[in-house]
Amino acid sequence: MPNRFGKLFSISTWGESHGAGVGVVIDGCPPLLPITAEEIQAELDRRRPGQSDIVTPRKEADAVEILSGVFEEKTTGAPIAMLVRNADQRPEAYDEMREKFRPSHADYAYQAKFGIRDHRGGGRSSARETIGRVAAGAIAKKLLASKSVEIRAFVTRVQDIAMPASDHFPSLAEIEANAVRCPHAATAAAMIERIKEVRAAGDSVGGVIQCRVRGVPAGLGEPVFDRLEADLAKAMLSLPATKGFEIGSGFAGTLLKGSGHNDAWLAGNADGRKEKTRTATNRSGGVQGGISNGQEIYFNVAFKPTATIMLPQQTVDIHGAQTELTGRGRHDACVLPRAVPIVEAMTALVLVDHWMRQNAQSGTFVF
Amino acid sequence: MPNRFGKLFSISTWGESHGAGVGVVIDGCPPLLPITAEEIQAELDRRRPGQSDIVTPRKEADAVEILSGVFEEKTTGAPIAMLVRNADQRPEAYDEMREKFRPSHADYAYQAKFGIRDHRGGGRSSARETIGRVAAGAIAKKLLASKSVEIRAFVTRVQDIAMPASDHFPSLAEIEANAVRCPHAATAAAMIERIKEVRAAGDSVGGVIQCRVRGVPAGLGEPVFDRLEADLAKAMLSLPATKGFEIGSGFAGTLLKGSGHNDAWLAGNADGRKEKTRTATNRSGGVQGGISNGQEIYFNVAFKPTATIMLPQQTVDIHGAQTELTGRGRHDACVLPRAVPIVEAMTALVLVDHWMRQNAQSGTFVF
Amino acid sequence: MPNRFGKLFSISTWGESHGAGVGVVIDGCPPLLPITAEEIQAELDRRRPGQSDIVTPRKEADAVEILSGVFEEKTTGAPIAMLVRNADQRPEAYDEMREKFRPSHADYAYQAKFGIRDHRGGGRSSARETIGRVAAGAIAKKLLASKSVEIRAFVTRVQDIAMPASDHFPSLAEIEANAVRCPHAATAAAMIERIKEVRAAGDSVGGVIQCRVRGVPAGLGEPVFDRLEADLAKAMLSLPATKGFEIGSGFAGTLLKGSGHNDAWLAGNADGRKEKTRTATNRSGGVQGGISNGQEIYFNVAFKPTATIMLPQQTVDIHGAQTELTGRGRHDACVLPRAVPIVEAMTALVLVDHWMRQNAQSGTFVF
Amino acid sequence: MPNRFGKLFSISTWGESHGAGVGVVIDGCPPLLPITAEEIQAELDRRRPGQSDIVTPRKEADAVEILSGVFEEKTTGAPIAMLVRNADQRPEAYDEMREKFRPSHADYAYQAKFGIRDHRGGGRSSARETIGRVAAGAIAKKLLASKSVEIRAFVTRVQDIAMPASDHFPSLAEIEANAVRCPHAATAAAMIERIKEVRAAGDSVGGVIQCRVRGVPAGLGEPVFDRLEADLAKAMLSLPATKGFEIGSGFAGTLLKGSGHNDAWLAGNADGRKEKTRTATNRSGGVQGGISNGQEIYFNVAFKPTATIMLPQQTVDIHGAQTELTGRGRHDACVLPRAVPIVEAMTALVLVDHWMRQNAQSGTFVF
Repeated sequence: MPNRFGKLFSISTWGESHGAGVGVVIDGCPPLLPITAEEIQAELDRRRPGQSDIVTPRKEADAVEILSGVFEEKTTGAPIAMLVRNADQRPEAYDEMREKFRPSHADYAYQAKFGIRDHRGGGRSSARETIGRVAAGAIAKKLLASKSVEIRAFVTRVQDIAMPASDHFPSLAEIEANAVRCPHAATAAAMIERIKEVRAAGDSVGGVIQCRVRGVPAGLGEPVFDRLEADLAKAMLSLPATKGFEIGSGFAGTLLKGSGHNDAWLAGNADGRKEKTRTATNRSGGVQGGISNGQEIYFNVAFKPTATIMLPQQTVDIHGAQTELTGRGRHDACVLPRAVPIVEAMTALVLVDHWMRQNAQSGTFVF
Repeated sequence: MPNRFGKLFSISTWGESHGAGVGVVIDGCPPLLPITAEEIQAELDRRRPGQSDIVTPRKEADAVEILSGVFEEKTTGAPIAMLVRNADQRPEAYDEMREKFRPSHADYAYQAKFGIRDHRGGGRSSARETIGRVAAGAIAKKLLASKSVEIRAFVTRVQDIAMPASDHFPSLAEIEANAVRCPHAATAAAMIERIKEVRAAGDSVGGVIQCRVRGVPAGLGEPVFDRLEADLAKAMLSLPATKGFEIGSGFAGTLLKGSGHNDAWLAGNADGRKEKTRTATNRSGGVQGGISNGQEIYFNVAFKPTATIMLPQQTVDIHGAQTELTGRGRHDACVLPRAVPIVEAMTALVLVDHWMRQNAQSGTFVF
Repeated sequence: MPNRFGKLFSISTWGESHGAGVGVVIDGCPPLLPITAEEIQAELDRRRPGQSDIVTPRKEADAVEILSGVFEEKTTGAPIAMLVRNADQRPEAYDEMREKFRPSHADYAYQAKFGIRDHRGGGRSSARETIGRVAAGAIAKKLLASKSVEIRAFVTRVQDIAMPASDHFPSLAEIEANAVRCPHAATAAAMIERIKEVRAAGDSVGGVIQCRVRGVPAGLGEPVFDRLEADLAKAMLSLPATKGFEIGSGFAGTLLKGSGHNDAWLAGNADGRKEKTRTATNRSGGVQGGISNGQEIYFNVAFKPTATIMLPQQTVDIHGAQTELTGRGRHDACVLPRAVPIVEAMTALVLVDHWMRQNAQSGTFVF
Repeated sequence: MPNRFGKLFSISTWGESHGAGVGVVIDGCPPLLPITAEEIQAELDRRRPGQSDIVTPRKEADAVEILSGVFEEKTTGAPIAMLVRNADQRPEAYDEMREKFRPSHADYAYQAKFGIRDHRGGGRSSARETIGRVAAGAIAKKLLASKSVEIRAFVTRVQDIAMPASDHFPSLAEIEANAVRCPHAATAAAMIERIKEVRAAGDSVGGVIQCRVRGVPAGLGEPVFDRLEADLAKAMLSLPATKGFEIGSGFAGTLLKGSGHNDAWLAGNADGRKEKTRTATNRSGGVQGGISNGQEIYFNVAFKPTATIMLPQQTVDIHGAQTELTGRGRHDACVLPRAVPIVEAMTALVLVDHWMRQNAQSGTFVF
């Protein structure tokens, strides 16, 4: 189970950074969805290394092969297995890691847990694992598109460089307009400059990604443990390098009083308009009592600065002795640009799963 | 599944605010643990209404009955069912809620999801649901105590009143020394005053709870989806009124560079001492790559101001018409003091479950 | 998990023979189903002790209390907890069992597994556990009735006394016409006589229950592991005293050749009739490739003779010494009459669950 | 979930008969197990087509590639993905199946369920799916071997040709001594002759496989739904062509009285011997109350005659019209010889999973 996500639209990822490849099996996909490898590849290309001059130069085409579950370009309802072979491997670049635990990496914890670890490029803990998520997410996004749901993740802050607060729902073009995937051009330029600076210094930075979703109907999510925000939080904290999650007003909302925080309901015909019931404000972030309320869903995810840096660091080796390590290999000085499609993929997986759950419980036996 | 939590030490809660009662069934509890109803009651008393003058005055003894799974004061390995009858019910106080959706409550979303809702006191969305979690958590805490694990949750901020930042591990006595469960006496006094003020004004406040855990060995948690921080995030965001979660350096950590954020490893014999390998700093919050690294685990949870306020609010009724609602019933102006034992309970449930998972995978077939 | 059944319509049973009571929590029940305690009680009365002169005389009203999940006589989609208090307890009748392992009972295996067991009346291994299944099954049956599905279990054989082979779909009245629940009156009379004989001799008998289901549409079940027959087999083998399961032609079908076993498909308009596509024969038992094919589902379940007998038997005690045990307590000389509603309940649980699964996968996103 | 099996040692199979290949992902495998592709290949070779003159001549090397989860010939605890490419594909041989439903095959049910099906060679319903099970089972068997557990499946009956009843635990050599995998040489010869006869006639036969397991300690299995026999029954009924399962005395045991059926316990020191407590007889089949009791486990599985025959059969086409179909393609006239390793694989998967579950519940927190 540890490598699976989702109850009904459920994925199982596998693979290591320097093994034969990485992949995913989707179990429970609805049948008859038209899908091609090209559509999946398009999402993979958004997280691909080497796509711009501010991300890792590892040369990986990340070409996906659909092994099963699609027949004559339609899903059949059978498991969809997808494979991406690893290509640009330089295991020798990681020889030092066989002996030394990289600070703030998974190395020490893996060794403690399993008594063994594939040290090459981080093995299973490599962000290459997210390829499977993005491939599966591409299918989930297409399912949601058939229901007119749109998901937009984008970088709102790199270290202390933040775009102005806004509830604008950015277009895909606005986000893809620059290498850092921040829809505010001036901020994006400053972010890119910062990333280049820290990379030149052998250092790294983190930041915040926001994700906004519109078109989700009221009623998705569960009242108690599997609240929509709980499953989104888990999805986001399951991504490498994440340290925080907040939905709607989040941590800042705790500074308000209830009278200033509550979202008043407005009748659809208020102000002479004819539309759906809505809230006057949206500090709830589109979720109340664990369940979507029909308003826009939005949340923030905190990504720490990349643990791999090109500066000498104190650490211990597998024999328990103090030593020093200087990062090598090819890494992102800032993971956020490439994390954008991953955040979208995880969001899509959560929403599809809850949609199927909702229809199972409330759409099967109807009274 | 929606009302279940945990894979191996798994709980199933049930019940509504004004139904017959609330309860929990624990499935998978280890056998032979000595346990009495009194031990469970002690934890329930920490979340009980009416325990101090800053919490809801609803009169509930919340007396627990163990219905199964315990024989001669030891767990048998069979399901442990526990029941708390509801006592102080005033359903008539909620008549208005049958027709009107309370702002920032679950009412509208439940109606959209299920087409029906038990409106009395919020029904299933009431925080009384957490009684089952605390009862189960009492058992989980006792299991962890046998491994010398200690869990301390406490209130670090109420609205803008925050205790000084610290990595002190507070004693239970320090936390229980005041009604607001903040281990810093001066701050606690200010918090209590604030809560009384806003309650007198018919308003409400939120804040932040921190939870610290020590004694967890390296190796708990899973590499990918079921990361320890992901499951903790889900556990916390599954609690009523929560809007955010951050572990270790959290959102603030995104302002640092990697060189300033990474936790250097120190050999156990550094500085002439003879102890376990440790990190010089702990911005990781005790978890790396999804797995505990043997350092102290700590995280923050944001609680929004209570949605129920005694002031008039705009809303719509079930017929879609605009209307006004003034809160009634008995509610907390600030949920944080009573949320402290709930945060601890959920933390314990996550840790016990991962401990059992770790032992299943790495302790059954040993090579 | 060990005490849970079903993925989407999922039940969790708890309780021991001589503890406070037994019960069940249903998680995932569709909302808005009209249901009353009386409807559930009616099914419980069919498995109740003391209902006739051929079953155990234990005096239990088995009165059910619905604790949650039902509001104004409709399901709300929240967990439905149901409780049956134990009444007629004679724990002292079981004192000998504290020390001695009853042959062909669960005593020894429980002790080996858990290191502890509630010996009173078999504790968790008692067939009283099935009360929760029948209560949940009553709700599942009502859900299925809304889709015109009918489930009929009945006794076809007691020891060597078998009713004539038939594919007649018996009415509930035919089955309930006698105490043994065999719809063939002459056979039923012989069965009852046999049961009385063996009971008088302090001995016991087993036999076979058949279950037939009509009205199930084609398409329920999963292609690989969760085949409909696999889940039915698991459901049946999860019942106390069962030793075998066969669907359709079963073991006897292995004596045929493929040419004599295959079920030819007939067009709905064959023979000038206008109806659905059907099979000429039904050796498949209504399931092909793990999935219902729209034909009648039928299967047989083997129940061994009751392990509790009133004759002296060789066994060992908890100290490993050889000893002798003579059964006491109140037991059925033949469990089959009371197992009939339990078989129906488990069948209903499997079908409702698969119906919800099918609608989740194929009815949510439609292309 | 529908394509997954096991809770802790959990597999996920994928692939179709004439797609790119078939495979499996194992999630939760214990780390540090030494394993090579050769060891897995050895088991796959036992189920491979073309291995003898009584099985299908489809030419498939079924060469396995381990894609992940194994590092330097040891498992790492990460998911183990394994891939077998399809080679000998003749999709044109199946053109007729695009339009016509094969009798007693999955075709009609798949079409009803999914609205689409990969008709080539049965697609997902092909027995090639079991390659993933056998590959995973090879690892499970190696885990069990480290605990001295031995699993032996073998053919006891083909149509009406049965080997003499026996409780002999056959050696692997005895089973592999002939093409039909029946450890009784004279019976095997008759079986082989029968299979050749029916194949020459374009027909098919079924039969019974028995599986015996020794070395399983008392304590595996769960008391209620996940009984060891229930999970074994599900595992077996999840195999293509199976129609029945019985454990221990099975259906025949229902003809006995309790006094003749119960297994008396014998002290380990009975008859002057010094050994473990055991039963005098073993009609329970090694399982009591759902839990292994330390005795040998044995069960029978009924396989129907292969549905594919080379004789003309009545059926309907996808337009609902009556038509005739004559089987083509390359199939087994009797699936049992190749099903033997599959039965062993599923048995191993069930046992490993329950072993890990038992250790999780009873071996993690010990009192």
